[in-house]
Formats: sequence, structure tokens, C-alpha cells
Amino acid sequence: MIDKFERMAMLFDFYGRLLTDKQQEMLSLYYEQDLSLSEIAEEYKISRQAVHDTLKRAEKTLEDLEGKLDLVKKFNLEQEKLAKVLSLIMELKEDQVQAGKIRAIIEELMEIKQTD
Amino acid sequence: MIDKFERMAMLFDFYGRLLTDKQQEMLSLYYEQDLSLSEIAEEYKISRQAVHDTLKRAEKTLEDLEGKLDLVKKFNLEQEKLAKVLSLIMELKEDQVQAGKIRAIIEELMEIKQTD
Repeated sequence: MIDKFERMAMLFDFYGRLLTDKQQEMLSLYYEQDLSLSEIAEEYKISRQAVHDTLKRAEKTLEDLEGKLDLVKKFNLEQEKLAKVLSLIMELKEDQVQAGKIRAIIEELMEIKQTD
Repeated sequence: MIDKFERMAMLFDFYGRLLTDKQQEMLSLYYEQDLSLSEIAEEYKISRQAVHDTLKRAEKTLEDLEGKLDLVKKFNLEQEKLAKVLSLIMELKEDQVQAGKIRAIIEELMEIKQTD
């Protein structure tokens, strides 16, 4: 079970580009750069409550998007399957070159969605 | 190179749920059920031009979403890689049971995004 913070960071990673620029900035400060509500409020010269409201609205938008597209759910399911494929390949003894090539592609696949 | 029709059908598959109900209905009739603009116009008792405009707006929204999230582009890239993994596994001679298990998971992975 992942906590709310982790889940939001993931939703932001998947759907962040669909938010307004201001929402993106604030969520990035909060979830990626780990600033507090007060620190963000100071940065923007607005109240702590205003930051809170903006984050809440953005989080609701992210949850609504996940409710419609399920990208995070599908991503997690796929990562589990890729990890299983990878572990099966590690067990293959015979053709190490072949297994190495397969492993490299799987690892690249697991990387794609995490780093772009 | 895929044609415009195929591309739109794919974008609709990926992002359709983010459109309005009416846009979804019309795009489904046009791209999935292959009705003509005139047939859709008749169905909704509106002009052919109004159908055309609704489709154009919806298509623009789909292209904008792809511009931001690149899901179709990533999907195609991933399918290519999975196909490559699959072909490498088909070449593995030794442990047929193991290779069979891996192949089943890869095929399931290739299926996930095409059918749900």
C-alpha cells in the first residue's frame, strides 16, 4: 500500500501536463521539491489557505483523470508483469547472450515510463 | 505510416474518455462504427456541417492531449520493444517451458492496452 503523498506524486508524474501552469508549479514545489504549504505561500505572496485550495483542486483533477484513464493502475500492473518476465529470464541458464539481450530490452521498457 | 483515420481511431481509444459524452458518441459513430457525416447528421437531426465542426473540435482536443502526454507515441515504442523481446524468446531453444511462460506474459502485456 502506498501512501497519499507517493500516490499524488505518481498521478502528478502521469497527468501533470494537463494541469494549468500555476497548478503544475505548485504541485512540483510541494510533491517534488518538498516545500511546505507556508513556504509555497511565501514564494507566491499568497495565503497558506490559498495554496491549500489550489493543491486540493489540482489533486481532485488528477484523481478524476486517473478515474477516466487508469494510467497509474495500468502502469503498476505492467511493471509487475515486466518484473516477472525479468525474473524468469534471470533463471534461464543456457544462452546467456540471448538472455542478456532480452534483459536489456525489458530493463529499458521498465525505465521508459519512469524517467521521461 | 498510418493514415489519418487510423491515427484518430487510436487517439480516440487512448483519450476518448476525456471528451464530452456527445463528442464521444459522435466519434464512436464516425471512427468505430464507420457512419458517414450525413448519417450522423440524420441520427442527431442536425446539419452535416454541425457534425463536421463537432468532430473537428474533438479531434483537435485529442491531438492536444497527445501533444501533452504522448501516450500513443509511447505505446507504439513499447509495442515495438515487446515484439522484439518476443522474437528473441522465440529463438531460445533450450528451456521450452520457461520460454513458454515468458512468452505468455509478453503476449498478455501486448494485449492489455489493446483491449481494455
